[in-house]
Amino acid sequence: MLDYLSLSREELEKLRLGLQKEYDAFQAQNLKLDMSRGKPGFDQADLSRPMLDVLNSNSDFKSESGIDCRNYGLLDGIPELKKMFGEILEVPADWVFVGGNSSLNMMFDTIACFMEKGVSGCKPWSRQGAVKFLCPVPGYDRHFGVTEYFGIEMIPVPTDANGPDMEEVEQLVASDEQIKGIWCVPKYSNPLGITYSDEVVRRMAALQPAAKDFRIMWDNAYCIHDLNDRPDKLLNLLEECRKNGTEDMPVFFCSTSKISFPGAGVAAMAASPANMNVLKKRYSFQTIGYDKLNQLRHARYFKDYQGLMEHMKRHAEILRPKFEAVLSNLEKSLLGKGIASWTHPNGGYFVSVNVLSGCAERVVSLCKEAGVVLTPAGATYPYGKDPNDSNIRLAPTFPPVSELETAMKLFCICVELAAVEKLLSEQ
Amino acid sequence: MLDYLSLSREELEKLRLGLQKEYDAFQAQNLKLDMSRGKPGFDQADLSRPMLDVLNSNSDFKSESGIDCRNYGLLDGIPELKKMFGEILEVPADWVFVGGNSSLNMMFDTIACFMEKGVSGCKPWSRQGAVKFLCPVPGYDRHFGVTEYFGIEMIPVPTDANGPDMEEVEQLVASDEQIKGIWCVPKYSNPLGITYSDEVVRRMAALQPAAKDFRIMWDNAYCIHDLNDRPDKLLNLLEECRKNGTEDMPVFFCSTSKISFPGAGVAAMAASPANMNVLKKRYSFQTIGYDKLNQLRHARYFKDYQGLMEHMKRHAEILRPKFEAVLSNLEKSLLGKGIASWTHPNGGYFVSVNVLSGCAERVVSLCKEAGVVLTPAGATYPYGKDPNDSNIRLAPTFPPVSELETAMKLFCICVELAAVEKLLSEQ
Repeated sequence: MLDYLSLSREELEKLRLGLQKEYDAFQAQNLKLDMSRGKPGFDQADLSRPMLDVLNSNSDFKSESGIDCRNYGLLDGIPELKKMFGEILEVPADWVFVGGNSSLNMMFDTIACFMEKGVSGCKPWSRQGAVKFLCPVPGYDRHFGVTEYFGIEMIPVPTDANGPDMEEVEQLVASDEQIKGIWCVPKYSNPLGITYSDEVVRRMAALQPAAKDFRIMWDNAYCIHDLNDRPDKLLNLLEECRKNGTEDMPVFFCSTSKISFPGAGVAAMAASPANMNVLKKRYSFQTIGYDKLNQLRHARYFKDYQGLMEHMKRHAEILRPKFEAVLSNLEKSLLGKGIASWTHPNGGYFVSVNVLSGCAERVVSLCKEAGVVLTPAGATYPYGKDPNDSNIRLAPTFPPVSELETAMKLFCICVELAAVEKLLSEQ
Repeated sequence: MLDYLSLSREELEKLRLGLQKEYDAFQAQNLKLDMSRGKPGFDQADLSRPMLDVLNSNSDFKSESGIDCRNYGLLDGIPELKKMFGEILEVPADWVFVGGNSSLNMMFDTIACFMEKGVSGCKPWSRQGAVKFLCPVPGYDRHFGVTEYFGIEMIPVPTDANGPDMEEVEQLVASDEQIKGIWCVPKYSNPLGITYSDEVVRRMAALQPAAKDFRIMWDNAYCIHDLNDRPDKLLNLLEECRKNGTEDMPVFFCSTSKISFPGAGVAAMAASPANMNVLKKRYSFQTIGYDKLNQLRHARYFKDYQGLMEHMKRHAEILRPKFEAVLSNLEKSLLGKGIASWTHPNGGYFVSVNVLSGCAERVVSLCKEAGVVLTPAGATYPYGKDPNDSNIRLAPTFPPVSELETAMKLFCICVELAAVEKLLSEQ
């Protein structure tokens, strides 16, 4: 296999000509493909069609609580869903607050609440000077967007196959009282697809932050989103926290956006009573309550945790070939060339590719000019700035396999072309 | 008819004995009735049962925009609902932002946004020192809760049958730059049930506030919630604002909570592009989007504005006898006694009763001890403090008529008893 980094100028020039030809041919096809966002496909949405028959004009609308879900009440959600989300998040059901359709919105509300009112008896974050957040990178752009919106300074922390660099995290939080939190997608992380190792989770639970009001934003968005029968196993953070007396540190989030319907699912969060008291006070001013009919629809359709896991298997069957299309193309076209590396996730919604330093923007722009939209380069870093201009997030879930095959062929050509251009410019 | 204020001590003592006997008899019944909140009854929720058949496993989920509502996208809502809410609020469809299930949440988000980011190019409200809000009283407790949560000082403004005292409003906003807004329920107001007169609306639109970032929170919660065939007519605020060049002043809100299902309806807001740009920026960080399946369900069920109005007539048929039960009991028991006055709304969810000064808390507590829960006395005033301890909000919509008859008989006895106690103590 050819390592591009050892090629001569002539060999590179020749390669470029060939790649350019292939690229031009793609451009002539007027493609219009989108691999930019972690959107489920409509084949996945079809799996939940029967959920829409669960409640109809003849239904009884009583939740287990005895409450008719067609009226106000039960700010923290119906008990059957509190139980189910408790099982998903592996926390006690009475720690769970079931909300509306968006876990991102619950994270936004949580940050907003701590900014305005504070937590752990401390002053509001907004009155403590410039506060900061740790952002394991590459990470989820919408997390970074929330902290940026509130003017919270973001400090990137490198991530490897085991999770964030815990030595750096430990040192930073122990030495800087202004650091108030860390964003985590602990399982099948966005975009790496890696799952935090047991050691990383243990060290996360054992953190000794200088700030009493330091919080771990534990966004378990892909907690049951396995792709195959060798799923990653995430250690239970709360159990580890209990061993360290740090139960007030984590705030847990998840949703059914990638289980039932994106945008029409149900989101939930969970936290210790001390945290929840602060948050529930805000919620009680913010709303009379969330959509309990949609909560009931979900509870009755999935029935229980087992039902949910069966449903997730059907998602996996749809997603597996899509991830395989991405990985097999990467392997076929780029393996051994020394110009790209990528992750092999067992679940989640993304494959993360690192191209040669300084080439990510060029690759994304080449793809765009040939009709394939990718997540903008840099999006996986705070402020949209990848210091190496190297990381690209691929989202294989939305397009059909045939489109993915085409898009991936083009993508690999763009990675090669950008690499050859760079190597030529440096010779 | 007996005016209690002209009775002798002996007459009052005799009255008290009789009333106490009647009250004791009620207490012996162990009633458990609730007239505390503006909740629709389940007879009303039944009207919208067929809405739950509109989307089922065989449905096509495309909105008029061509977008399949089972996936992310369309932050500001599906066009068919933007159109419908535009008609309800009497504003252009492209001013409308369709949200989740709660207009209260949208008001909370709006205040939060202006607090954190500011509006009209001004500094964030939170960085302008102690800011204030005008609160027409009696008013809606949850409005006052939102401004209280954000530490905004509330200034009560008296309201009569025409709306807020506009002379006072004009003087206050013109002279104090710290006054940033006013809470309004302009039609069938909570709790008075009155509708702002044309003159009040015109003067509202012509306000010349010292603060460039002064906003009218126009919560049109009961805009199409007429009770009979002589509905109040509210002048179009936006049209009046256009005549004054004050289109940036109002922010409009409404929801289907009292049209389809409380808590499982759809909420919307509307504002000028200048305001909406600030708000949409926040929304774009806060969420990926709202529940478009529920939006589609509403759009297809009601079809159009005409369909909505037909549906509202069926609500009115259910509510009319409930309001009549309240009003006929008040009339029968209290008219001409000089100890209470009340409103006669043509729509909305409340009847407002003023009892003798200093008696509201006593009446609510007497009712409670006999098993009838009312809205807490004072709730209709900022900080829960009615300076006259006189206003009581009655919410007749939830209980069945038979229960209302019982509750109202008790209520009237309590009003009389509290009045007689007061008059005796003053003699």
